[in-house]
Amino acid sequence: MLSVPGLDNRYLQQGNNLLRKMSQLQRIAIAPSQLQQGQILLTKEQQHYLRRVLRLREGDRFIAMDGKGKWWLAQLAGEQARVLEALLVETELPVSITLMVALPKGNGFDEVVRCCTELGVTCIAPVLSDRTLLHPSPQKLERWRRIAAEAAEQSERSFVPTILEPVTFNTAVTANQTIHSYICEARGEYPHLKKVLNSISDEIVIATGPEGGWTTQEIENAIAFGFQPVSLGRRILRAVTAPVVALSLITAACEV
Amino acid sequence: MLSVPGLDNRYLQQGNNLLRKMSQLQRIAIAPSQLQQGQILLTKEQQHYLRRVLRLREGDRFIAMDGKGKWWLAQLAGEQARVLEALLVETELPVSITLMVALPKGNGFDEVVRCCTELGVTCIAPVLSDRTLLHPSPQKLERWRRIAAEAAEQSERSFVPTILEPVTFNTAVTANQTIHSYICEARGEYPHLKKVLNSISDEIVIATGPEGGWTTQEIENAIAFGFQPVSLGRRILRAVTAPVVALSLITAACEV
Repeated sequence: MLSVPGLDNRYLQQGNNLLRKMSQLQRIAIAPSQLQQGQILLTKEQQHYLRRVLRLREGDRFIAMDGKGKWWLAQLAGEQARVLEALLVETELPVSITLMVALPKGNGFDEVVRCCTELGVTCIAPVLSDRTLLHPSPQKLERWRRIAAEAAEQSERSFVPTILEPVTFNTAVTANQTIHSYICEARGEYPHLKKVLNSISDEIVIATGPEGGWTTQEIENAIAFGFQPVSLGRRILRAVTAPVVALSLITAACEV
Repeated sequence: MLSVPGLDNRYLQQGNNLLRKMSQLQRIAIAPSQLQQGQILLTKEQQHYLRRVLRLREGDRFIAMDGKGKWWLAQLAGEQARVLEALLVETELPVSITLMVALPKGNGFDEVVRCCTELGVTCIAPVLSDRTLLHPSPQKLERWRRIAAEAAEQSERSFVPTILEPVTFNTAVTANQTIHSYICEARGEYPHLKKVLNSISDEIVIATGPEGGWTTQEIENAIAFGFQPVSLGRRILRAVTAPVVALSLITAACEV
């Protein structure tokens, strides 16, 4: 799955610890033009995302991907990142997919994490919406990360998706905006998600709602931050089904 | 959701029993040319499917759909079916989708029935493959049908999908072939399902495998009966995830 140029296969097979550690690294999407002479020039938003959202510190390593299938192991250094090596990755999608999910009741989120990891999600952001009933304990976050690690291995992925700490929907909306940000809404006459997927280049953020749907204010707030409302079809999907359906469509569109 | 021309809305609201009964009817896809002067001329395959697979008897009612959004309530009469009335349907897909699923272990099939009903499946055919461990009791079938009825109501569908009795995969393959029959296979270099979906007109059959995948012989047998092997992406999906992913792609492609 993961092959690092410069290391021979024997080393790779013996180096399970190295691989396991690398597979847990966080990922961000960069534009090819950001890579200059072995350095990645990070945007203000990327610096914020790496340090504040992903909680990386100076010298920490992460994966940069250019949305065209190129991957680099990089190390955070001030406003830049040093490229340590190029990576060869075969079972990962060429784009960064962030899924924002309003936490469903009960243990429903376990299955969302499992399915979406199998499908190839990059980052899952659990959010507390106005209609969210669940307020998860810190143990839940550990549990979801363990499920993601297991599912990544079972589905033969090279990397484990990042599971962010739960925040309110409005906080998540400001932290996760990108050119391609979508919010799924069952009611209303919005275009089907399939119709907007042709234009995805390097990263996409998609949000799915809680039981009972988003409030009007949440939708309006998301739109104000550049999210485009989309439909997943004419039938009403449960809060645990919608993320899997959205991810199915996105990953199929991105699969090379 | 379901509105029957010739009955006013007040009648419809009061006629819950009539509606509930209608929502349980089986469906088949017909070509527009089969409809002549209020009669549907059934093909040999359709007669076999209605009488042997769906177990309908003379005089029983079913729904005929032309794949272009037109629906009729019909009554089985010999080699034909009498058209009783035209139906107006808004939350159903214009095509007939049959999902053949190798029964997963445990209670995993419950969630498959629930999700795929929400997505809009027409008929679910549980199958026993060479690697299927579960041999379900008759109570299971009743349970799945109850789940389908609940999920159809929750997702605001007009019809409840048909859940067939479990049969061996080889039996199901011979009973469910159509021009657009696909079998999902994780290993091997098969085209992605998304690449074959443009051509769907009126009906599609899709099969997803058990834990451990189909045997080579099962794949070969399916191919011999006109099934085309397809991929759902480069990552390995669980037996309970694959049907939901396949249905997500198919229903999105068929949604008008």
